[in-house]
Amino acid sequence: MEFDKLVHQPTRLQLFAYLYRHGSATFSELAEVLDLTEGNLSNHLQRMEEADTVAVEKEFVDRKPRTTYELTDEGRDSFEAHIGTLETLIEGLDDGE
Amino acid sequence: MEFDKLVHQPTRLQLFAYLYRHGSATFSELAEVLDLTEGNLSNHLQRMEEADTVAVEKEFVDRKPRTTYELTDEGRDSFEAHIGTLETLIEGLDDGE
Repeated sequence: MEFDKLVHQPTRLQLFAYLYRHGSATFSELAEVLDLTEGNLSNHLQRMEEADTVAVEKEFVDRKPRTTYELTDEGRDSFEAHIGTLETLIEGLDDGE
Repeated sequence: MEFDKLVHQPTRLQLFAYLYRHGSATFSELAEVLDLTEGNLSNHLQRMEEADTVAVEKEFVDRKPRTTYELTDEGRDSFEAHIGTLETLIEGLDDGE
């Protein structure tokens, strides 16, 4: 059973799940909902961006910068594959000896 | 959502799952089934033992030492709680906006 460490890490697993479910989210929304410091969130999003799993859009709204994140197709695929791995592990628990 | 890092780490998650499913296992069985080096397996089992989640039995069989591992009640509880957390995350994916 192969575990995708990029996706499996607890904070990123929750980021993937949130973006998968909600489509896109701003930096401040993610920080608030997942209760993360800006530095911590920044580090994880950067790892995800470097792995081409998240796309970033920067714009100005009312003259304030706003950064929005969404999963790329590759990000959605990686997340779905990892959820499949976890489901396989969980389902296997019922097949006891 | 709180993640129990002791249980969530990929190698340990598989160790917990194997011991949960099979009741007990020898060191060499775990190394073979999960394809782990002795050093790597040793480190993870020690972390689990220090957290009182795994119990160790050492005995001699045909004059050879044999070490057997099984989850403690606390270990089973921690694993079940963590599986519950993962199931909650997975189930939440269907509740899109």
